[in-house]
Amino acid sequence: MAPSPHQLRLRVRYGETDQMGVVHHANYLAYFEEGRTRMMADLGCPYGELERAGIGLPVRKVELRYRAPALYEDELCVETRVTRLRAASVSFGYEIRRVADDELIVTGESELACVTLGPERKVLALPDSLRELLEPHLEGAV
Amino acid sequence: MAPSPHQLRLRVRYGETDQMGVVHHANYLAYFEEGRTRMMADLGCPYGELERAGIGLPVRKVELRYRAPALYEDELCVETRVTRLRAASVSFGYEIRRVADDELIVTGESELACVTLGPERKVLALPDSLRELLEPHLEGAV
Amino acid sequence: MAPSPHQLRLRVRYGETDQMGVVHHANYLAYFEEGRTRMMADLGCPYGELERAGIGLPVRKVELRYRAPALYEDELCVETRVTRLRAASVSFGYEIRRVADDELIVTGESELACVTLGPERKVLALPDSLRELLEPHLEGAV
Amino acid sequence: MAPSPHQLRLRVRYGETDQMGVVHHANYLAYFEEGRTRMMADLGCPYGELERAGIGLPVRKVELRYRAPALYEDELCVETRVTRLRAASVSFGYEIRRVADDELIVTGESELACVTLGPERKVLALPDSLRELLEPHLEGAV
Repeated sequence: MAPSPHQLRLRVRYGETDQMGVVHHANYLAYFEEGRTRMMADLGCPYGELERAGIGLPVRKVELRYRAPALYEDELCVETRVTRLRAASVSFGYEIRRVADDELIVTGESELACVTLGPERKVLALPDSLRELLEPHLEGAV
Repeated sequence: MAPSPHQLRLRVRYGETDQMGVVHHANYLAYFEEGRTRMMADLGCPYGELERAGIGLPVRKVELRYRAPALYEDELCVETRVTRLRAASVSFGYEIRRVADDELIVTGESELACVTLGPERKVLALPDSLRELLEPHLEGAV
Repeated sequence: MAPSPHQLRLRVRYGETDQMGVVHHANYLAYFEEGRTRMMADLGCPYGELERAGIGLPVRKVELRYRAPALYEDELCVETRVTRLRAASVSFGYEIRRVADDELIVTGESELACVTLGPERKVLALPDSLRELLEPHLEGAV
Repeated sequence: MAPSPHQLRLRVRYGETDQMGVVHHANYLAYFEEGRTRMMADLGCPYGELERAGIGLPVRKVELRYRAPALYEDELCVETRVTRLRAASVSFGYEIRRVADDELIVTGESELACVTLGPERKVLALPDSLRELLEPHLEGAV
């Protein structure tokens, strides 16, 4: 059975719209980021703690598909899944829907590398504690 | 012979950094947007004019790969190419390098649909005038 | 008796920090905007509806004082009051505190003009319906 | 004789507009920041160097007045002056005009404290080297 995705609700802010009258496309990266970091926090591993321990998860790759525009004041639901766990990286998949009519707004995926923070980033194995928290949420996990 | 890409120089702003000490990954979408719209303006078709004529080019799909972090005050060069021209869409490819050491920072591609502006967007053929301006810059064009 | 302010809780997003390791100062304008527009929505007059009726409330003046830095993942409470109601403008005052320790982070005030939307903005009297909703929340109102 | 202000030209980006069809008001804080940090860099003291030396200039107070809206693709000129120099703070004043018609768009002022960077910020005297560079640009200086 597929693990259920993490769900986060957020409301579109005025400053997130552009003159086309819809959410500017760059803001969905912030929504994705909120999705995965709230997921981590809800699992008991806030991303801020990871950074305080000297570990960072910078985004290495991201893909977005814009399905329908979201509007100012829309309430959106960001669904986040773990789509891949590797030795030193983790990928998250996202579906953003408008709560009012369940319309699919944006889908996407991002791959994050695990690195040491500081002037020179070195690739690092994902901490076991984080891996154990994420594993049950891995898509396709049994 | 490959057409030479459009080049735009910009400098990283303080507010574009995040607490990892580097440019926050969402800002590269703004750099891409500046790249393609300055290209259109330099070719004689500013994007703003298109919108005033009731035509929009919303982003339908985008991919980014983060190669190396850019820092505050870095001067960056955004190289933009036309990678695909279809009946009702156009794709642009991007390479962002740091001017000081020519390091490759981010690469990516975005696909834009051609639509009517207004409450209901209808797919529209790319205006011929725009197609003619972009065609010579199409990657792989002879 | 002073009317109680509107309260909105929000959490600092990663992309809202800068390389100083704190919330970049421009983001508080977005928090203020969320404060006043959520207040209007909770009073029964969502700002979006006003715009759909052809009326806008652009910011004419704003002041901010930064008291203490807010950090990534901090939960903040935005308290919004109506500080002045005039014929064709309304002012809101804000206090933003960190929920965990009640520390005062930012205070400020903004003045919004009431105008017709569209290419040429004309000053407009505040709609009576909006004035009636805001009046009981006017600071110093009896 | 009044020292001439520092001038910076920049072009409004698409993502800086909002659904009112104009530059969203929060973006002017980024324009101000670009104004003062380009001024410092042009005087020979890039703000990034200051931070690398452990010194920060966080914004303590800011005021903005919005005179006229700026539009997408407008070229703007940010004029920056030093309006006050104190032991441990510096204030900058700004005028932003549209280049095409010289229309005044926004004016404002910001006060920056001089502090040590790091978890606890301590107030610090402005470095003499910075003071000497800024002094000749102080409004009203003889």
